[in-house]
Amino acid sequence: MSQSFDIAVIGATGTVGETLVQILEERDFPVGNLHLLASSESAGHSVPFRGKNVRVREVDEFDFSKVQLVFFAAGPAVTLSFASRATAAGCSLIDLSGALPADQAPQVVPEANAQVLAGLKKPFQVSSPSPSATTLAVVLAPLLGLLDLQRVNVTASLAVSAQGREAVTELARQTAELLNVRPLEPSFFDRQMAFNLLAQVGKPDENGHTLLEKRLVRELRQVMALPSLKISVTCIQAPVFFGDSFNVTLQSASAVDLVKVNAALEDAPGIELVEAGDYPTPVGDAVGQDVVYVGRVRAGIDDPSELNVWLTSDNVRKGAALNAVQVAELLIKDLL
Amino acid sequence: MSQSFDIAVIGATGTVGETLVQILEERDFPVGNLHLLASSESAGHSVPFRGKNVRVREVDEFDFSKVQLVFFAAGPAVTLSFASRATAAGCSLIDLSGALPADQAPQVVPEANAQVLAGLKKPFQVSSPSPSATTLAVVLAPLLGLLDLQRVNVTASLAVSAQGREAVTELARQTAELLNVRPLEPSFFDRQMAFNLLAQVGKPDENGHTLLEKRLVRELRQVMALPSLKISVTCIQAPVFFGDSFNVTLQSASAVDLVKVNAALEDAPGIELVEAGDYPTPVGDAVGQDVVYVGRVRAGIDDPSELNVWLTSDNVRKGAALNAVQVAELLIKDLL
Repeated sequence: MSQSFDIAVIGATGTVGETLVQILEERDFPVGNLHLLASSESAGHSVPFRGKNVRVREVDEFDFSKVQLVFFAAGPAVTLSFASRATAAGCSLIDLSGALPADQAPQVVPEANAQVLAGLKKPFQVSSPSPSATTLAVVLAPLLGLLDLQRVNVTASLAVSAQGREAVTELARQTAELLNVRPLEPSFFDRQMAFNLLAQVGKPDENGHTLLEKRLVRELRQVMALPSLKISVTCIQAPVFFGDSFNVTLQSASAVDLVKVNAALEDAPGIELVEAGDYPTPVGDAVGQDVVYVGRVRAGIDDPSELNVWLTSDNVRKGAALNAVQVAELLIKDLL
Repeated sequence: MSQSFDIAVIGATGTVGETLVQILEERDFPVGNLHLLASSESAGHSVPFRGKNVRVREVDEFDFSKVQLVFFAAGPAVTLSFASRATAAGCSLIDLSGALPADQAPQVVPEANAQVLAGLKKPFQVSSPSPSATTLAVVLAPLLGLLDLQRVNVTASLAVSAQGREAVTELARQTAELLNVRPLEPSFFDRQMAFNLLAQVGKPDENGHTLLEKRLVRELRQVMALPSLKISVTCIQAPVFFGDSFNVTLQSASAVDLVKVNAALEDAPGIELVEAGDYPTPVGDAVGQDVVYVGRVRAGIDDPSELNVWLTSDNVRKGAALNAVQVAELLIKDLL
């Protein structure tokens, strides 16, 4: 006799929420009753699950005692409004918004720090990090023992889907207008996104750093349990619909053993290592896949203590929805 | 009475060669007779100059003693074939192909190391570096005195125009096919370029580094006169038609004075510093302009000895054709 769990997904009509529901079905997650929830504007829509259309209801009116586990896949404001109601009702939660502090809901990437879950008390509260931190953690985890890591330098080229459906539509619309030599009128983005690169995603603080960049540093340090790791990060908006890409330089204190690095990446869970000489791309490799693609593994041009890698992953799937479901798969052993 | 010079441009039908001819006209360069040259396939075309169409002739048959200065704006093979014939005829040359060794034809970026020209003997031989090295040198030059520079980390997102007209046409064709939901058949690039990022430009060597990356390191060290500077570089192909972008992290040995850095960038020639909080983009800012745009000037998130900047410049114009003409403007004082 197999156990099943009643589950709620908040933000079920968003790109991440919808993918999350799809992954629950694909991976035969033991779902009993599935409650799909959203803000009042999105309530009334339906999302397919196991051959049926499940109606999305308003989160405001939901009785959290009906479920054992809830995924928060809406914005931080929604998490902050409803997380305490969920836990008060005895319901465990996995938050994808980054709203909860690490001491309340630790950031977990199963390939990197699954052991953190063992120390939690019921009802469980876990955070699934930002797509960038998740992707980086999956690849850094198997390398940590091989490097005397001094510094990480990341240029993250993010897909527009990170900003939701409106951003995806806008890139398509701008591109079509330009190809048809019609005047460009940017709406979602404040300037031309098609055939362009935007050096900043979101407003920077007074020191020039964006929220996304600070979140990546904070979350990656927490997942890797390296609170003072030096991380330099720039998040760029690329004219790509789906799939984030990362150019990463890892600085070690001593020469890097590339044979061991390649072997570790080859053996690690959640990673597909592309053969030397080739490289992975967001479209064609990462999008729709359950792994982080890694390529261009190489030392510095004349610095043997430098390790360079190129990563790409599906930001909606591997970076967000799948990671949350992987956390849930580990949690349910102790959920009841 | 003003002096004028007879000039040849080899590779006059390419993107860089054509722009070079246009810049000679725009800047009222004292051109007497202009000889436009190319390989036999391109000979017979015409390029406009001062209201006339100048016919492009075969380089093979050219008598270099007819001119005082020649620009080599074709590939390295053409430079290697004809450079010695040009100098034997007493003709000075500026090479944009990277084919000549530094001790024969030093790399010069006027904003960074114009003083090198004073040490040369006639006929002059000068190299104009790759667009990436040129752009980086323009911005590093005014900063060197302010930093105890330990390391430079560069992620270069290159425009397809770096690979010539065929690459530009191919990005447009692929994009149109995808928007019209037609099957994609890549031709110039070996995979989908539209809405994608390619992590490698050209074939890598056995250590994983491409020619472009090694050229950037070699040229930048030479122009900055820092032969052992640690430079980590990755050149990526972005789905952008014109304009290269660079995410740059400079590691200093001590805390960086951002006020002084901003003041130095504000005062430096060849640079347009964008106001704090904003950032420049290839399309809309850099393309068609004579300066390198700089933005996102900031220290590390919690490392005051780290300096981050975002650069973008017109790869064909500022990165190549204009730099060569600027070198020529300095050379002609001593040309006759």
